Amino acid sequence: MTFPELLKADAAQVQARLDAALAGHDDLPVVQAMRYALQGGKRLRAFLVLESARLHGIAPDQAISAAAAVEALHAYSLVHDDLPCMDDDDLRRGLPTVHVKWDEATAVLAGDALQTLAFELLCDPALGPADRRLALVAGLARASGAQGMVLGQALDIAAETAPAPLTLAEITRLQAGKTGALICWSAEAGALLAGADPAPLRAYARALGLAFQIADDILDVEGDEAATGKRVGKDAEAGKATFVSLLGLDQAKARAEALIAEAEAALLPYGDRAQALIAAARFVISRQS
Amino acid sequence: MTFPELLKADAAQVQARLDAALAGHDDLPVVQAMRYALQGGKRLRAFLVLESARLHGIAPDQAISAAAAVEALHAYSLVHDDLPCMDDDDLRRGLPTVHVKWDEATAVLAGDALQTLAFELLCDPALGPADRRLALVAGLARASGAQGMVLGQALDIAAETAPAPLTLAEITRLQAGKTGALICWSAEAGALLAGADPAPLRAYARALGLAFQIADDILDVEGDEAATGKRVGKDAEAGKATFVSLLGLDQAKARAEALIAEAEAALLPYGDRAQALIAAARFVISRQS
Repeated sequence: MTFPELLKADAAQVQARLDAALAGHDDLPVVQAMRYALQGGKRLRAFLVLESARLHGIAPDQAISAAAAVEALHAYSLVHDDLPCMDDDDLRRGLPTVHVKWDEATAVLAGDALQTLAFELLCDPALGPADRRLALVAGLARASGAQGMVLGQALDIAAETAPAPLTLAEITRLQAGKTGALICWSAEAGALLAGADPAPLRAYARALGLAFQIADDILDVEGDEAATGKRVGKDAEAGKATFVSLLGLDQAKARAEALIAEAEAALLPYGDRAQALIAAARFVISRQS
Repeated sequence: MTFPELLKADAAQVQARLDAALAGHDDLPVVQAMRYALQGGKRLRAFLVLESARLHGIAPDQAISAAAAVEALHAYSLVHDDLPCMDDDDLRRGLPTVHVKWDEATAVLAGDALQTLAFELLCDPALGPADRRLALVAGLARASGAQGMVLGQALDIAAETAPAPLTLAEITRLQAGKTGALICWSAEAGALLAGADPAPLRAYARALGLAFQIADDILDVEGDEAATGKRVGKDAEAGKATFVSLLGLDQAKARAEALIAEAEAALLPYGDRAQALIAAARFVISRQS
């Protein structure tokens, strides 16, 4: 299987798991909004969970609930980030955002329930012994809370009214929280499920997460609205400091490429078994959306 | 110790645990808002956790993180419920609500991080074996998600635009989600921590939770704004169906008293050891706030 085929196959599996998780729920707007928010996307985080699990000999059906959990968590963060009081976005993955299609109250509640769903999915007995599932819960809570993703988001909001644009060190810290922590958890998940040392995967994911964000900043400058499915040029418009505004386009690209080389090097201990994760790293800086 | 003294002592312990959980966090508005939202309140849910634990011979320091978790979860729900797009409340526990004191974005994020904090607290090794902690995580996720608290909140929103006022059965279902599920989890927590049968505590909590909501509806009619720390008369103003509007004041009071008798009866298997939980039940319908 080529990398895009593998990504697509993994995405289909995680979609089926997410659909099953919401089967039998009341057909209320909040549940419809949850289903809507769980459609589409690259499913890169789910892929990292499933492939880091495979790397440790764990079959997809023993890891799928963890892959679904991180996508539910990610979906919650997008629904809340898009709210008028936050980034005020009306387009996501080429479709109206949840508060545009329904209303703000439904978007707040759907996001809340998607976060809860993420933790509920991690309790699935199919993921193995209780202590390993609990390690996943603890890790996801750390990655997404006030010292992880929410910290990054709060730093982002603070930057909007800061007297000076952020420095490179400050942006790196912001992004380590905002996107890095969840990518890190995803890549480590396979090792946690296997009770193995997650250190090589953590090193891989740290470099990958930062490269991912730099690529996002590049896409906001060079990207095509039709391909990305969201508005482009927003950062420059808002006068926001980004890796591109701080480093320039060429240096930003060079930095992203160096990080991908670093990510690949971190996977050396796994040899050939890490091919899919290496392909994911290359994909991150070549993607058009 | 009298019941109010015990409630106060338990509340002080849980506050200390919550303070410790946020110690060392960055001093950002979102963290200040989390601390603010975690102040005050009756701490009835924490009390139920600590007392149901004591009932099973589990000391408070082995249950305190679960008590703190449910208060963090409850605080998240209040911060989000108070948002302009939800109940649009500007007063809570006698103080400005989070979005009034800070802003909406900070309120959304602080609520999000408080939910995460709840699950993080349940991973505390002091709570005992991994399988019991995981049972608490799974139970809290069920109680608070789209088939628990969020379901109740969504039904509440749907009721606002429904063609006819809710029936007694519909209000009972709504409240079972909105306030009942979390009260149930709290009372069962001690049994889950001990690996014991939670059935008697569940029966107690179901009756208690419903009585609690009826008492809330009565307070909205008869209560004093200074004592409750929130606006009163809101439900009648909004033309909302409540237990009082459906049953009348006298019948609502009689129903709450019958439920408290039912709650007490459910605790018979525990004998004298259940005195604190019985006192809590009596408190619920006599409270002024």
